[in-house]
Amino acid sequence: MSDIRYGLIGCGNMGSGHANTLTSGAIRGAALTAVCDASADRRVWLRERYPSVTVFDTTEALLDSGLVDAVIVATPHFDHPKDAIAAFRRGLHVLIEKPAGVSAGRVRLMNEAAAASGRRFGIMYNQRMNPLYQKVRDLIASGELGEIRRTNWIITDWYRPQAYYDSGSWRATWAGEGGGVLLNQCPHQLDLWQWTTGLMPSRIRAFCHFGKHRDIEVEDEVTAYVEYPNGATGVFITTTGETPGTNRYEVTGDRGKLVVENGRLTFWRLRESEPEFNARNTVPFDRPEEWKIEFPNLGPSPEHAGILQNFTDALLNGAPLLAPGEEGILGLSISNAMHLSAWREEWVDLPLDEAAFETELQRRIDTSRGRG
Amino acid sequence: MSDIRYGLIGCGNMGSGHANTLTSGAIRGAALTAVCDASADRRVWLRERYPSVTVFDTTEALLDSGLVDAVIVATPHFDHPKDAIAAFRRGLHVLIEKPAGVSAGRVRLMNEAAAASGRRFGIMYNQRMNPLYQKVRDLIASGELGEIRRTNWIITDWYRPQAYYDSGSWRATWAGEGGGVLLNQCPHQLDLWQWTTGLMPSRIRAFCHFGKHRDIEVEDEVTAYVEYPNGATGVFITTTGETPGTNRYEVTGDRGKLVVENGRLTFWRLRESEPEFNARNTVPFDRPEEWKIEFPNLGPSPEHAGILQNFTDALLNGAPLLAPGEEGILGLSISNAMHLSAWREEWVDLPLDEAAFETELQRRIDTSRGRG
Repeated sequence: MSDIRYGLIGCGNMGSGHANTLTSGAIRGAALTAVCDASADRRVWLRERYPSVTVFDTTEALLDSGLVDAVIVATPHFDHPKDAIAAFRRGLHVLIEKPAGVSAGRVRLMNEAAAASGRRFGIMYNQRMNPLYQKVRDLIASGELGEIRRTNWIITDWYRPQAYYDSGSWRATWAGEGGGVLLNQCPHQLDLWQWTTGLMPSRIRAFCHFGKHRDIEVEDEVTAYVEYPNGATGVFITTTGETPGTNRYEVTGDRGKLVVENGRLTFWRLRESEPEFNARNTVPFDRPEEWKIEFPNLGPSPEHAGILQNFTDALLNGAPLLAPGEEGILGLSISNAMHLSAWREEWVDLPLDEAAFETELQRRIDTSRGRG
Repeated sequence: MSDIRYGLIGCGNMGSGHANTLTSGAIRGAALTAVCDASADRRVWLRERYPSVTVFDTTEALLDSGLVDAVIVATPHFDHPKDAIAAFRRGLHVLIEKPAGVSAGRVRLMNEAAAASGRRFGIMYNQRMNPLYQKVRDLIASGELGEIRRTNWIITDWYRPQAYYDSGSWRATWAGEGGGVLLNQCPHQLDLWQWTTGLMPSRIRAFCHFGKHRDIEVEDEVTAYVEYPNGATGVFITTTGETPGTNRYEVTGDRGKLVVENGRLTFWRLRESEPEFNARNTVPFDRPEEWKIEFPNLGPSPEHAGILQNFTDALLNGAPLLAPGEEGILGLSISNAMHLSAWREEWVDLPLDEAAFETELQRRIDTSRGRG
């Protein structure tokens, strides 16, 4: 079978990384054949750097070129659903950058277009390739951790100085990005949080601070408390204003505790489940036997190249997708619910009232300094 | 100067520990001369075990005996203010067990009685003797950590099986103890949280689960979000239902981060404060230089014996108290505010509306299975 011919829509920070990977020969069965970018300067640079790749001015020109089997959508967040839908309508496969979009309602339309097209749909959740998080998911899905009791993610190592925000007038504005640390930095953790546990919250109470540490419109600090359908609870804390930050993910179950921190996974496993121990125990200060388990050989993460290879394998041989595009709505719904809860200062139930979020977001876009 | 003659009011779990310490000779300048306990069986045991100590039936008899200079109050939580006030009125010095009481309003009356008496007043916050937390306080008070940005305490290693709760019909009832994990297990952390930082929250939104993991009336799982007057935020998470739990305390400032976990303190110090770096930096993904600092020689904690020695030294030579009794109201006010926020499902401001807490607690006491 011939190589999958990829077209790249948008070639900024993320897109140029994918262009390099695809043209390096690192992805078996993949070739970069076309690129489009809205910036004339960028197109000059692209033609010089990738002489064998056709460079287009517009998304439509690329989609209609007949040069591509699949596209990678690496445009601004707001445009992901629109660009993906345009590609699906032309019968192309689509791999989108994260986040899936800005509002879950529009991402739902993208998911529907994907289903109607019959084409493959992936999302660049490269952290799903990390063996640490794959092992967390495995230990939970296989029942080793038991019924989940509590989740806790402190993800405060997304430090961004003011110079970062000043590097683009669209950055960290409601009109330009539709959100801050939740939309731009945390989509991976919001995805992994539900992907590793297999649990979506049933309701969320979030506390967001907007422009607290930086001169920006959007949130740069978030603390969210969630409750799950099974009675478990959870906390998610993030900020771009701290350094050195923390990236510590803890999940407790009735058979023990998992902690991912400093690039290591530790599993404290109870030899006997806590409810079983509690039911038979008669000693006031006793507790079940615990084992501290480490995982010496989990190996490195293939990251973005891993997602590109998996998506290519899916197109060539029907390999199962590790990060189906349809699942982008899950982490985004959590993000939307956090925003809505903070704006309204109340609980937000999931499934999300997508129209309510859209209305509240639009109010902020209408007065955003990032308009136009 | 002769030894301080201590009377012990209440000789259950905690009291008998203090009796052993005082009679062991470990505390310089201290002698146990009198004990009282409401249980006749307990008094028989006390007379056998401590033949040189006078054993009384009632608190009043001990207080009026003329045999003591100071008392240690180790009665049930509810009785601490009443017993301490009775002792102050007789001109005795008082060291109370934690918590200071159940409601901040009654503890305030105790503080007023202490002030009126002119006697010394201490509280058994033995974890203030821990060099780890003393160093945290030192690094914050001296400005090494800079302005505090965020606090986070996950204190879930208070595992208690049902057999613990079944060991006394008063346990974990509103009438018997006035609360659960916040009142019984967490007073130390609620104290250290404010003592190490020097910050009391300005408002609290707490989420408590009552009898979630055990057949009890009171809370056995709490997640609380707090905001401080300087704009910092914090989270406090506790439960008695998990094992193996976590005890991890993190404080972030604009000069770095402190973490206490697994009996170790780590200080990530920024060479330049974050706001100073941010003001001069022009590189989007740069960050200030950080140092990882460890403290190899902090030494062991003298715990309860340390508090007993310090209180004795205060009486004999005017040594400053490490845990003044008047400060018991601080952690308790946080605890009361968490309860009130959870009961009312809304924000609670500090300083606390003590009457509102008392009213809500009384409603629960009135229907408690622990009455009588």
